Amino acid sequence: MIDITRLPTILHFLETIDQFKTIYRLSYIGEQSRHENDAEHTWHMAMFALLLHQELSIEIDIEHTLKLILTHDLVEIYAGDTPAYDAVGHLDKEKREEQAAQPLFAQLPEDMHIQIYGWWREFEEGRTPEARYAHAVDKLQAFAQNVFAQGRTWHENGVTAEKSRAYNRSAREFDPALTQAFELLYQRAADKQLWPEQRQS
Amino acid sequence: MIDITRLPTILHFLETIDQFKTIYRLSYIGEQSRHENDAEHTWHMAMFALLLHQELSIEIDIEHTLKLILTHDLVEIYAGDTPAYDAVGHLDKEKREEQAAQPLFAQLPEDMHIQIYGWWREFEEGRTPEARYAHAVDKLQAFAQNVFAQGRTWHENGVTAEKSRAYNRSAREFDPALTQAFELLYQRAADKQLWPEQRQS
Repeated sequence: MIDITRLPTILHFLETIDQFKTIYRLSYIGEQSRHENDAEHTWHMAMFALLLHQELSIEIDIEHTLKLILTHDLVEIYAGDTPAYDAVGHLDKEKREEQAAQPLFAQLPEDMHIQIYGWWREFEEGRTPEARYAHAVDKLQAFAQNVFAQGRTWHENGVTAEKSRAYNRSAREFDPALTQAFELLYQRAADKQLWPEQRQS
Repeated sequence: MIDITRLPTILHFLETIDQFKTIYRLSYIGEQSRHENDAEHTWHMAMFALLLHQELSIEIDIEHTLKLILTHDLVEIYAGDTPAYDAVGHLDKEKREEQAAQPLFAQLPEDMHIQIYGWWREFEEGRTPEARYAHAVDKLQAFAQNVFAQGRTWHENGVTAEKSRAYNRSAREFDPALTQAFELLYQRAADKQLWPEQRQS
């Protein structure tokens, strides 16, 4: 099964994506010493998905979900992170990321290029249960991370509970287990007064 | 299916493992600005496993492999990282990690505690094809990372090509595809003179 031309290509791609470790997000790691990067976010998201999927009211394919999660933000290596509340950045996010996807994934052998591009599009389109679960977990991890880091990102960016609840609506409503997880964290954020203004809608 | 006592427990564990992002390894990220941490190493390993498993001469269960990889180093949150060439640290590594596993995994509901502890033991014992593949990928990612970062870790720790080849023997021999991947990287390390001494055994 070994095609000697494939391995150098795959290793080159695995080196390119090392840069994922230097794409920083607005969120902080729990101890607040620095921002969280995409590699850490992705690993943590995979752990959220793995440890919560058995709590869902529906059956999802965890293998497929993990594939979507592990690769969902790779385009940011070329397109950069677009923060959740960056309205201007979101105007051309889709276009920038599509433009990043081609040169990035084309570094792989053609069959793998098609496969990984397919996973990324599936995540983006959010039509399958696994893509919808991955989306919900993306938001849950980001929200939980901001609770773990005492709401610092919310203070720095003027994010209120009301704004956060609106942003997380589809993720909160994905499944009763996620609704409960979000509510536990919103309750903690309220109890600890982590919001920049006390507008707990 | 929702048991309201489970979610707080799982979220607490997901917060504990945020500390994974501050367990630093001897290896550097590619641009050498800082050491790589366990969360980044684990995400990158998962990508190596995902993108190389179809190149293997044997069939392995990638879902199970990803579960082993995502959780294989979590005990280091309490036990710390034991560098590859730390002979003293390796004397009690097994004992320290076993002592770390219980209080860490016991933070989860009992069924999940048993499951995740089982994955960790399976990885440690290395008897299944998935555990053996995960082990080989652990070493391949670490080795590749040191090539990507221009051999800096080898220089700082006096690691020669000979010592590295001995350390990576079982990973190199796991499968012809991994043999080729390692040889491509050893060739590059030699061509770029990345070793502290020119002892390319």
